[in-house]
Amino acid sequence: MRILILGGVAAGTKIAAKLMREDRGNEVIVLNKGKHISYAGCGLPYYVGHVIEEKEQLIVNTPEKYEKLTGATVLTEMEAVRVHPQEKKVEAVNVKTQEAQTFAYDRLVISVGADPVKPPVAGCDLKNVYFVRTPEDAISIRAAADLEAVKRAVVVGAGYIGLEIAENLKLLGIETHVLDMAPQALPGFDPEMAAYAKEKLLESGISVVTGVAVTGIEGDGRVERVVTDAQSYPADLVVLSAGIRPNTAFLDGIGLEMVKGTILTNAKGETNLPDIYAAGDCAMVRHAVTGQPAWSPMGSTANINGRLIAGNIMGADLAYRGVLGTAVCKLPGLNAARTGLTEAQAAAEGFDPVSVVAVVDDKAHYYPGASAFIIKMIADQKSLRLLGVQAFGAGAVDKIIDIAVTGIMLTGTLLELADMDLAYAPPFSTAIHPFAQTLNILMNKITGRFETVTPAEYAKGAAEGYRVVDVCMAPSIPGALRLELTDVNGPVDGLDPEENILIVCNRGKRAYLLQNRLKHYGYTHTKALEGGITFNHVTT
Amino acid sequence: MRILILGGVAAGTKIAAKLMREDRGNEVIVLNKGKHISYAGCGLPYYVGHVIEEKEQLIVNTPEKYEKLTGATVLTEMEAVRVHPQEKKVEAVNVKTQEAQTFAYDRLVISVGADPVKPPVAGCDLKNVYFVRTPEDAISIRAAADLEAVKRAVVVGAGYIGLEIAENLKLLGIETHVLDMAPQALPGFDPEMAAYAKEKLLESGISVVTGVAVTGIEGDGRVERVVTDAQSYPADLVVLSAGIRPNTAFLDGIGLEMVKGTILTNAKGETNLPDIYAAGDCAMVRHAVTGQPAWSPMGSTANINGRLIAGNIMGADLAYRGVLGTAVCKLPGLNAARTGLTEAQAAAEGFDPVSVVAVVDDKAHYYPGASAFIIKMIADQKSLRLLGVQAFGAGAVDKIIDIAVTGIMLTGTLLELADMDLAYAPPFSTAIHPFAQTLNILMNKITGRFETVTPAEYAKGAAEGYRVVDVCMAPSIPGALRLELTDVNGPVDGLDPEENILIVCNRGKRAYLLQNRLKHYGYTHTKALEGGITFNHVTT
Repeated sequence: MRILILGGVAAGTKIAAKLMREDRGNEVIVLNKGKHISYAGCGLPYYVGHVIEEKEQLIVNTPEKYEKLTGATVLTEMEAVRVHPQEKKVEAVNVKTQEAQTFAYDRLVISVGADPVKPPVAGCDLKNVYFVRTPEDAISIRAAADLEAVKRAVVVGAGYIGLEIAENLKLLGIETHVLDMAPQALPGFDPEMAAYAKEKLLESGISVVTGVAVTGIEGDGRVERVVTDAQSYPADLVVLSAGIRPNTAFLDGIGLEMVKGTILTNAKGETNLPDIYAAGDCAMVRHAVTGQPAWSPMGSTANINGRLIAGNIMGADLAYRGVLGTAVCKLPGLNAARTGLTEAQAAAEGFDPVSVVAVVDDKAHYYPGASAFIIKMIADQKSLRLLGVQAFGAGAVDKIIDIAVTGIMLTGTLLELADMDLAYAPPFSTAIHPFAQTLNILMNKITGRFETVTPAEYAKGAAEGYRVVDVCMAPSIPGALRLELTDVNGPVDGLDPEENILIVCNRGKRAYLLQNRLKHYGYTHTKALEGGITFNHVTT
Repeated sequence: MRILILGGVAAGTKIAAKLMREDRGNEVIVLNKGKHISYAGCGLPYYVGHVIEEKEQLIVNTPEKYEKLTGATVLTEMEAVRVHPQEKKVEAVNVKTQEAQTFAYDRLVISVGADPVKPPVAGCDLKNVYFVRTPEDAISIRAAADLEAVKRAVVVGAGYIGLEIAENLKLLGIETHVLDMAPQALPGFDPEMAAYAKEKLLESGISVVTGVAVTGIEGDGRVERVVTDAQSYPADLVVLSAGIRPNTAFLDGIGLEMVKGTILTNAKGETNLPDIYAAGDCAMVRHAVTGQPAWSPMGSTANINGRLIAGNIMGADLAYRGVLGTAVCKLPGLNAARTGLTEAQAAAEGFDPVSVVAVVDDKAHYYPGASAFIIKMIADQKSLRLLGVQAFGAGAVDKIIDIAVTGIMLTGTLLELADMDLAYAPPFSTAIHPFAQTLNILMNKITGRFETVTPAEYAKGAAEGYRVVDVCMAPSIPGALRLELTDVNGPVDGLDPEENILIVCNRGKRAYLLQNRLKHYGYTHTKALEGGITFNHVTT
């Protein structure tokens, strides 16, 4: 069987290799527009920061090595320009010689990826303005960033790649501003979580400015500043990381079903046209919880789905259960990870979401390097099904998310996930695992044991008019009524049982304990503030 | 309601605190034989190695602090000596004054824990011979270990605590031998996995000797050597960590159903006697997969089950789904973790186990600090249900195990766990997650794509008479037929298609690729060696 694969970075090379392993008698041809195949796109930011030193480390396989290893044929700098589904042929052009060539196929896989979006402003072509998509991009950025004269940078786009680039520029001692026109950084996090991360990043020396539109990039030949609708940022270096767009324009008019520029696929990876599959950044897959189309331009999705598609091409009947929008991002002192539905998404999908923001130990508190996780957990109030988790912390946020992914994919409920025998030893975790700890707090909330104001509710004024009680480890809220937790063994002088009381502590736990006592002594209108002063800015 | 709790370390204090939170009107009395309650038993080895510096860090709560915090009453140095289930009373004795006292209860919780087993040999009472069970033990061991004169140690018992102690003594520069009479170290791992760990520990400077019985501990007042049935080991310090025994002797004859010295409990934590519950190291719970009684003397089990029991005492109807024998242990350069059934246990329980040993990257290979996981995954061949996972590595073995725990608890099959959207970014993981990578290899084995000899089979001689083909990155097996993977593009001169061939590479993957090619060219009797030369000692 002859399988033609358009695009050979993540999905394309994965599929080609697996097809050849499934049957070395296959004829597999990969047409790749660029020079490099199979490069480490996710590693580019770390090359910029010299975390990855050698550029060779970014190239997983050269075409020659790959061909020898797999038996597939790779034609680089060969751009597909037209697909003829009826004739089962693809027209391509050699990008160097402009020579045209036609390739027949039995099966076609479209995995042409996506290219960076060029902001619609002047100055994108100035010197020292870069995208970050290919190894060449990373090499250029680093060459510029390593120069003594480059002291200030602007990154346009506060998504994962933009923030990773910012972290790596900071490693080089470059003062970096990250600008994004969206109202928040870190897409995929609920707004209060994103806002928390933004503050912590600023403390770590990365300034993220949201809700700001870049109106121009200026300089005399070389970039000197980025102008926005609010102010102007001096910059010796600019990295544009404001989204990507699937390279699917050449597919217009052939009858391929598209969604927002991506190719719609079913669970088998098939498009609506016979014998044509699509995978990777140019394809639309499904969300595992909602079943709705979901775009997941991630190396992981490309590989996982690509492997499955190769199986299906060879006659298997594998259904991809879809994505959860999982992401993890290393940030200075605050790794960020998420999976599943946000609270807003859960509500929009017709769930009855309930959530909690918990601050919990990431390992035994007495073990060196112990830190805290900030975990937001979202479940459906009716079914108790786990829907989503968002986590921050200096430690292993990926572990928390991977547990959540497994739980969500197997449609686990909070009850089913509560008493799991997760791994514990002091260097790794806590006796009650931070995932279970968070889940228990959420269950306490659902069962009415823990009556709270969430950070999002608090920021919206849900506790306005409440009497603030400060039960922090040390007095921390000017103007609040200070109570020592262990001194409350009966009604509190001067505190009216009918009063609306907001109990605030460092993390949320002491507020829970005090609320518990106050309830016993007849205080019926208390709320504990989730996340305490660790997460919220509390005033009286 | 008056609830009497016998024992106040992990389970007892957890239950008491939760009972008081559930209803501050409860009268909760904890009788504790020792002076300390609520100490960090799992942290003791790290105190010995100065990883945890202050002894105060080992004490989570003093009785005074705990009483103030929870509202429960704690009586320390108060030993329960007799339970009268009919009268719902407990006789206790003050261990200092020998004064007797009787306590009535509405509900009784027995969480008296377990004490170290004293080996039945002479010399256990010599100076510098210690158990490791209480903060005092750890303080004594460290005081001794810190002395210049202490240069050599013997740890008796190669379980998790014994190995953790050994790691920490090694940190102090003390030459340490770990002796165990069992045929393998690391109980809960399959023998070939334990044997691998033993070798790696020796490379890291910790000598583990298995299958050896200690026959005496000798010295003139102070220990000088440990004598075994094989040889004698000079020792300035000895730590006895050869198991623990539940402190349940005082319960004899009251009609409590016991299993091997532990108190049998049902899923609600109830014993066979009315209004009596048991939890922690003295209780027998259930295995979540087999449903059989399982002893899980772990701080995590004590806390998880204790919390649930407190709920049940207060009228909830919570069923503990049981344990998986999960464990994780930090070791020099080779963290070890496990969960679920071993291959041997799976067979004994009537499953049809199939397993694989895989060597996979723990994060993007180009990211600094990337290392390998050694993962053994065990599933049921018929149902494809995941049954157990064992993992070694310098990295986050706890993450691999926590994914497995979640998958096993939700009775996930390999198919359901294969295409999950687990967290990926280069500093954390690989594009196809190491858990999924291992699972894919196991599925390739089950579907016949990957025909192997397991390390256990190889060690038992399953490849005797096979022609060994060396396809390592560099020639590595003297006497083997050397083949370059990419040069095999047809029948190989001198290699008979009918011959029994064992293909060996570094990890297993290149052997898979070569097997794939050889099959295509008519070689029908090839086996790849799982784990390659990384895991096995291969000779021709």
